[in-house]
Amino acid sequence: MINYPNKKVVSDSKKEYINYGNRGMNLEDSINLTNTYYLENNIAVIHKKPTPIQIIKLDPKKGRIVDAFFKSPSTTDYNGIYKGRYVDFEAKETQSKTAFPLANIGKHQVEHLKKVKEQGAIAFVIISFSKLDEIYLLDANYIVACYTNLERKSIPYSYIKEHGHLISRGYFNRVDYLKILDEYYI
Amino acid sequence: MINYPNKKVVSDSKKEYINYGNRGMNLEDSINLTNTYYLENNIAVIHKKPTPIQIIKLDPKKGRIVDAFFKSPSTTDYNGIYKGRYVDFEAKETQSKTAFPLANIGKHQVEHLKKVKEQGAIAFVIISFSKLDEIYLLDANYIVACYTNLERKSIPYSYIKEHGHLISRGYFNRVDYLKILDEYYI
Repeated sequence: MINYPNKKVVSDSKKEYINYGNRGMNLEDSINLTNTYYLENNIAVIHKKPTPIQIIKLDPKKGRIVDAFFKSPSTTDYNGIYKGRYVDFEAKETQSKTAFPLANIGKHQVEHLKKVKEQGAIAFVIISFSKLDEIYLLDANYIVACYTNLERKSIPYSYIKEHGHLISRGYFNRVDYLKILDEYYI
Repeated sequence: MINYPNKKVVSDSKKEYINYGNRGMNLEDSINLTNTYYLENNIAVIHKKPTPIQIIKLDPKKGRIVDAFFKSPSTTDYNGIYKGRYVDFEAKETQSKTAFPLANIGKHQVEHLKKVKEQGAIAFVIISFSKLDEIYLLDANYIVACYTNLERKSIPYSYIKEHGHLISRGYFNRVDYLKILDEYYI
């Protein structure tokens, strides 16, 4: 089915391999590279949406945008299709070693995750604890539950470790989240 | 199931109603309004993707983009989920009364439609013949077939009328394409 060419290498010398593999590459770049790998190998079609921008002024002579600002996104960053299923997720990185701050995710994004879940989507958040060198997939249901609990300001690392799934990493499929989907969703 | 509040009105006095309903509103606005209607009534979650932009220069003092240009999109404009199915489409308007020029759709967009179809998506193009006041849904398979036939420069109106589906229009759900999905896809 799906080929994970570096699976063996990762388990042999995980720490060194990952440090080398992810050197200078942030979470977004790693996911984009993974999605390109999925796309080129006809595994899945999942894209990052462009950042929404409000254009204020165009220069028609230059054909350029000369004044604009970033809008806050009303949906998640990534969506697409895998084995006939609609897939939707947000990806966030944190420097904390103990918790994921909920302020990292917007209210509209949580509402969007809830809505697509209701329609039958596979929806989740990819959380990277960069200082721990660990990336987790946490189902949207947990995010929605934590977010709607107003006393919470963050999700503890232990909670994510318990309810989420540690994502293994290959060379091209650096954040190999579809492996988790195969194991737990499809 | 789905409520089409203006179905009766449309069939009673179609021409006048549609002209009034769509006055000053282009295809994109009409589809966005329809998607908002679907979203607010928990019918489907389908969004237009932001236009991809290449940022050249940011002004950190103002927090504004001061130089940027439009990139050509590598995917279609719209995607989302309806009744558990991944839905993906492009929407185009033509002034022609006799044919839809294929130059209106980019090569990358056709490739994208082909790829999502292979993954099990419901994929199509919404084509508005604005001078005829008719909007059609044409399955991506026909677009891919016509596009890969290099002798074709356009798709004749008669071909679209034969293989496509005329989209009916309500007041809030102006381009009620999900009705076609219910009838022919789901």
